[in-house]
Amino acid sequence: MRIRSRSVSATPHRPVIGIVGAGQLARMTHQAAIPLGVELRFLADRSSDPAAAVAPGWQLGSAMDPAALASFAADCDVVTFDHEVVDLDALDDLERAGAVLRPSAAALRIVADKVDMRTTLDDAGLPLPPYAAISDAAGLDAALERWPEVVVKRARGGYDGRGVFVARDPAAAREVAAPLLAAGERLVVEPLLRLESELAVLAARRPGGQTAVYDPVTTVQVDGMCRRVIAPASDHRLDEARDLAVRIASLLDVVGILAVELFSVDGRLLVNELAVRPHNTGHHTIDAAVTSQFENHVRAVADLPLGAPDATCRWAVMVNVIGGDGDADPRDLLDGALELDPGAHVHLYAKDPETGP
Amino acid sequence: MRIRSRSVSATPHRPVIGIVGAGQLARMTHQAAIPLGVELRFLADRSSDPAAAVAPGWQLGSAMDPAALASFAADCDVVTFDHEVVDLDALDDLERAGAVLRPSAAALRIVADKVDMRTTLDDAGLPLPPYAAISDAAGLDAALERWPEVVVKRARGGYDGRGVFVARDPAAAREVAAPLLAAGERLVVEPLLRLESELAVLAARRPGGQTAVYDPVTTVQVDGMCRRVIAPASDHRLDEARDLAVRIASLLDVVGILAVELFSVDGRLLVNELAVRPHNTGHHTIDAAVTSQFENHVRAVADLPLGAPDATCRWAVMVNVIGGDGDADPRDLLDGALELDPGAHVHLYAKDPETGP
Repeated sequence: MRIRSRSVSATPHRPVIGIVGAGQLARMTHQAAIPLGVELRFLADRSSDPAAAVAPGWQLGSAMDPAALASFAADCDVVTFDHEVVDLDALDDLERAGAVLRPSAAALRIVADKVDMRTTLDDAGLPLPPYAAISDAAGLDAALERWPEVVVKRARGGYDGRGVFVARDPAAAREVAAPLLAAGERLVVEPLLRLESELAVLAARRPGGQTAVYDPVTTVQVDGMCRRVIAPASDHRLDEARDLAVRIASLLDVVGILAVELFSVDGRLLVNELAVRPHNTGHHTIDAAVTSQFENHVRAVADLPLGAPDATCRWAVMVNVIGGDGDADPRDLLDGALELDPGAHVHLYAKDPETGP
Repeated sequence: MRIRSRSVSATPHRPVIGIVGAGQLARMTHQAAIPLGVELRFLADRSSDPAAAVAPGWQLGSAMDPAALASFAADCDVVTFDHEVVDLDALDDLERAGAVLRPSAAALRIVADKVDMRTTLDDAGLPLPPYAAISDAAGLDAALERWPEVVVKRARGGYDGRGVFVARDPAAAREVAAPLLAAGERLVVEPLLRLESELAVLAARRPGGQTAVYDPVTTVQVDGMCRRVIAPASDHRLDEARDLAVRIASLLDVVGILAVELFSVDGRLLVNELAVRPHNTGHHTIDAAVTSQFENHVRAVADLPLGAPDATCRWAVMVNVIGGDGDADPRDLLDGALELDPGAHVHLYAKDPETGP
């Protein structure tokens, strides 16, 4: 397999960027790519995907299908990602065949696996919550002796709270873990921590290492999903959080946006999760920063100079509206917010809202 | 002809907006419509038009073709405009058939005609440069007796300096005017004014009258084309300029963006030109205002609450790069600007640059 030797793009100094996935992050990235004159193409699961509704250049295909990934990559100068649920072996093959992936398959591989991520950061001396990497019942028993109340996390495939289980006693932990271990899965087991707060920090990194770091934010999670972001975080360790992001971006040689989710526990900042793509803790940067995370992701992936990540206002709050209130369409609530506050902005994903009590 | 009785849009409270034209203003409007969840459709002259390159919903057709306009309007809930070179009689017919035009055909008609615009504003007591509306040689002679050095303007069809002629003596004025008058055109003749400066001010106006006014800007024109904008204008009459924009928006019952171009002459602000669409003196509002002119145009046309027009930084400068320096591609210069200033943003129109000495 040989991907390419010359540029697909007709515009000088502007690569055609392929985005694997066409969800809301891809949609918001398209918005940022328009002024830069960068053409985006999307590998979409469905024609109704949020990015496919607003952009002309998409094709249907699964990110888990090596053939679809290869044919998609052949149409692009650079490939980047809307999510991490991608066939990682296929990405290795693409890189060997000459495709340019930003971030690299290696960075995606580390971030997509909670065991590999922790091992890599641990080896580099970065601060993590206590954890045990578990692959059998004996390992689980040893962990449960140390920590009676634990969080069990599947190494792969979890996001927005999926694949994460809180176990208040050892029996509950064994009940969750046993079938997963029996199926050959690896798990991370961590003590149930008493969180003082949660923070997130985003860095954009260009090939060659130029890095722009955004103000760290306070995040409010409900059921493992980010529901509210306050920028900047009301925390005295903003520089420490920024420094962690820069160190991790460099360690993983990230190109594009790196998101670092942090726990504050016993006065220490500990790394909880990573993502190597635009992140839902940074949507406020569209309206409240000199350069949005999406524009800097495109600039980084296109190897253009990064823009300033500085805030344009003293504070900003992002509220993630998932469903309505009863039968109400949440879009009505959002337009009500526009009426109340002329400084408010809505960002619809063009997904059907989940309604419920 | 009957256009519609029910909404085209599948999204509650979000009309499908049709934009007549698919140039750079339409392209930038698409960028603003994505977060609002408003679907845009474009009537494009060519498949290579700037908006057609970044949006899925366009169809080919001429804004001067009544049939094309009618079939386009039938696919949209509301119709707005990227430019004024539109068949105005066809727009009247569309409105009579039930199409919703924002701005209205009446507002477009006044703005598209330099004589009608001046007459309408004059009657309302708004400050204008001295002018004569000319339709024959006798009228021209009378004007040239008053002002030996004049500017001759075609009533219709001129923009970016086209259709505007400076005549340093009566013979030159007659030479320009004679063939136009012979062809039945109406002309505006104005004395050649000594401009102290030029300003522009934008207002967004929603159906019902809610109005948001941007900071007036200083504009620098070269050969009748806006080459540089400095926001805010360094002028002590910003409130006076804002007030003119509000009065004119109300007088013409504008929905969407109104742009007012002003001359400062002998210490007075005089109205030079109007446009009822997003305007190239407001591009800086994308990066330097709480709500861009494009987002407020979409909000106004969709009858959503307007966003704050306030600046997010102390000053902003917009430079309109038309061509390169010799053989250089101007995109290289722009990327150089990004390298020099992390606060800079580029906005490519996806038009081929004009190169020259």
